[in-house]
Amino acid sequence: MMSFQADLLKYSECAEHWIKQHLAIEEVPEKRLYEAMQYSLLAGGKRLRPVLSLAVCDMLDGDREKVLPFACAIELIHTYSLIHDDLPCMDNDDFRRGKPTNHKVFGEAMAVLAGDALLNRAFELMLAETLQQDGFSEGRAKAALIIARAAGSSGMIAGQVVDMESENRQIPYELLCYMHARKTGAIIKASILAPAELLKASDNVKASLSQYAEKIGLAFQIKDDILDIEGSASVIGKPVGSDEKNNKSTFVTVLGLKKAKELLKTSIEQAVEALKPLKHTDFLIKTAAYIAERDK
Amino acid sequence: MMSFQADLLKYSECAEHWIKQHLAIEEVPEKRLYEAMQYSLLAGGKRLRPVLSLAVCDMLDGDREKVLPFACAIELIHTYSLIHDDLPCMDNDDFRRGKPTNHKVFGEAMAVLAGDALLNRAFELMLAETLQQDGFSEGRAKAALIIARAAGSSGMIAGQVVDMESENRQIPYELLCYMHARKTGAIIKASILAPAELLKASDNVKASLSQYAEKIGLAFQIKDDILDIEGSASVIGKPVGSDEKNNKSTFVTVLGLKKAKELLKTSIEQAVEALKPLKHTDFLIKTAAYIAERDK
Repeated sequence: MMSFQADLLKYSECAEHWIKQHLAIEEVPEKRLYEAMQYSLLAGGKRLRPVLSLAVCDMLDGDREKVLPFACAIELIHTYSLIHDDLPCMDNDDFRRGKPTNHKVFGEAMAVLAGDALLNRAFELMLAETLQQDGFSEGRAKAALIIARAAGSSGMIAGQVVDMESENRQIPYELLCYMHARKTGAIIKASILAPAELLKASDNVKASLSQYAEKIGLAFQIKDDILDIEGSASVIGKPVGSDEKNNKSTFVTVLGLKKAKELLKTSIEQAVEALKPLKHTDFLIKTAAYIAERDK
Repeated sequence: MMSFQADLLKYSECAEHWIKQHLAIEEVPEKRLYEAMQYSLLAGGKRLRPVLSLAVCDMLDGDREKVLPFACAIELIHTYSLIHDDLPCMDNDDFRRGKPTNHKVFGEAMAVLAGDALLNRAFELMLAETLQQDGFSEGRAKAALIIARAAGSSGMIAGQVVDMESENRQIPYELLCYMHARKTGAIIKASILAPAELLKASDNVKASLSQYAEKIGLAFQIKDDILDIEGSASVIGKPVGSDEKNNKSTFVTVLGLKKAKELLKTSIEQAVEALKPLKHTDFLIKTAAYIAERDK
């Protein structure tokens, strides 16, 4: 496990380094905007999504420099979604990763704009990338479109809307799965399939990775729901029990804790199974286990 | 002038038709999101930005089908920015174009998400377009990047931040120009230069159009500031005098009404002058005049 942790750190530092290089604070009248963007970007997230992209890149023996702009664009999109999610009119959270949320530090208006700016910047980075390096590339445009669709109104935002409209009522298991496949699953899947597309993986490889991605996406959410019951607020960096407080449907409330844990275990097994036809999957297998075992 | 009004209507209906075709409400659990997106998209805007794109397309004898996805993506971006601008934590406006603002109808959380979804959808449309029709096209990727940069943290959002931070104090003329070149100017310029890029206009043509775009962008904002003093609330569809109420720096407060009107006139003259080297500029010239003379 030690070498997995080292690899995890290596990938996450690689992404963080790229982000720092490409999102420096500029000495302009709107400097405060950059400070707000950077505050949340560098607030110590797990970087799971870019880590997955870089791991797929290594698995396919690809060039990391090609994948990094897309891996980091996904992290920008993930970060914007957290900033907007935390807003008073949304989940109204004061803490995230142990630090005050963006709007607590910069005010609500700036938090809205910093989120907007991060989403927009993700596309600026991907489009600029599509037009440079070794010439214009269809693969890069396809990767950007995979990410765009995962983030948008038929992906992450659809999931957020269903989540919001499901508050204060218990929803059926099918709708819960529909919601999470979009809210968290879509972007996780994109972080795996965008580099595969970029690096021209075969259809078989993409099918295996797609299956893996869906299963770890599901596992990730089940684990999140379990941590909200069993986790430690000081480790997670935000209060636990918020799902119950907000009367949200979760895998725990819909299935019960025991069945939720069983489904988590099965999902991880299926994720690992999906990788069977592929080579160099050591890190991805350990990532699946990490998702189930993490304490934050 | 009659034929200008007819052309204006023709272009704006052309854009509206495309938008309606591509943003139908879907029978999905997140249907309310689509309703919120469509509500603001079809709330009767002037469609100035897509009109400009289509006019440039006709001027360059280009194919409208090529330009429409980009023209309409700009309108989506413009619409998202209005939804977020109207939020209680931003300008807190209850009416826009004579109708209740998005958050008044759908609630704040949905308004945030509908705005996010429109921004994201703009990029989905442009990226999908980049990958289809007559094959992959570098010109389309360049047009998308022009739009992305105009909308983002060094464009429109930068302008919004400077605007926000300038409330309750009078700012120097230079900063006012800096702010508006970004807040409203950048997207207007992109709506003119993106189709020019797409249709492979020469550098000379792009330089003339760029100059024209900057001047009408400036004129547009000056006229907005004048309308906030002299306009009719019932015609504009929102209360007038809001700049004064919010103690905002405007071209009127910084220059005085007389000088603001002079600058408006000069800007229009310079915009028209910039078009001198080009052919088929009739509609663009009349658009410049329309910007100065409009009553809403």
